Amino acid sequence: MTLDLRSKIRDVPDFPKKGILFKDVMPLIGDAAYFAESIRQLAEWSRPREPDLVLGAEARGFIFGAALAYDLGAGFIAARKPGKLPWETVEATYALEYGTDSLEVHRDSIAAGARVIVLDDVLATGGTAKAKCELVERLGGIVAGALFVIELTFLNGREQLAGHDVHSLIQY
Amino acid sequence: MTLDLRSKIRDVPDFPKKGILFKDVMPLIGDAAYFAESIRQLAEWSRPREPDLVLGAEARGFIFGAALAYDLGAGFIAARKPGKLPWETVEATYALEYGTDSLEVHRDSIAAGARVIVLDDVLATGGTAKAKCELVERLGGIVAGALFVIELTFLNGREQLAGHDVHSLIQY
Repeated sequence: MTLDLRSKIRDVPDFPKKGILFKDVMPLIGDAAYFAESIRQLAEWSRPREPDLVLGAEARGFIFGAALAYDLGAGFIAARKPGKLPWETVEATYALEYGTDSLEVHRDSIAAGARVIVLDDVLATGGTAKAKCELVERLGGIVAGALFVIELTFLNGREQLAGHDVHSLIQY
Repeated sequence: MTLDLRSKIRDVPDFPKKGILFKDVMPLIGDAAYFAESIRQLAEWSRPREPDLVLGAEARGFIFGAALAYDLGAGFIAARKPGKLPWETVEATYALEYGTDSLEVHRDSIAAGARVIVLDDVLATGGTAKAKCELVERLGGIVAGALFVIELTFLNGREQLAGHDVHSLIQY
């Protein structure tokens, strides 16, 4: 019987601010069987896309992304907030509700032609995912797929990812 | 032939501030074969200690910790900076060069009696590792081992972890 991943997602009201119902993945990650099942499902979708690398954004994207990369026999690329990566970086900016934010990857992290699965825990408005896809393509890589554990479908994040192969394990 | 993990650690001078020679693990993580070998070595040490959980601190600790947890068939617990975890937390404070900082875990993340491998990428002064061990024990868990990819032996971090089983893959 397949484990119901959704049963391990905890609703936290008013986080990070009032009026937002936060989807907390920590109970899923902390349960060995459910965590393994989530990675199995992520890998099942990823494997036919023949990725060389998995790219995840800090911090929850590191958790699923690193385990997925390990399962696939791929390398892992960390996308971080500006100033966190020690070496030479390239940066992509994305819109927030108010203002903008950025993500960086190391300039040498993606070889030309490398196939990259871009992964994050949640697909919301799609801004950060789009920025990650831009970083992959700017370095000459190929976005082999954009993959999420949770998709908040009412925010229409897929529209930002037009032209990419998009998949999520759980939809709200 | 065993891959030499050390060959994939990049020295970055003057990061995060002047005079510090930063050990950058990103080239190791980004190389599929070396990343897999690092997780294999971490798992080899961990497995006989029969962990139920792996606890890692943000952000690089999430990368090695999640892949290790997945390999071991364990759950993963995220230790985060204050305010980042959405639900009820417990907190441990540790000393910095100037002032203090804290780490939190969710209050329900570790069942009483659970065996926990406390993992981080670098053992430096040992302050954060000690705080993580305290969090495990405060929640009734058992520290099954304190594990690191890199150990900066000249900083004597092991002294902070007296009474615990400590291991690192690479020493400087």
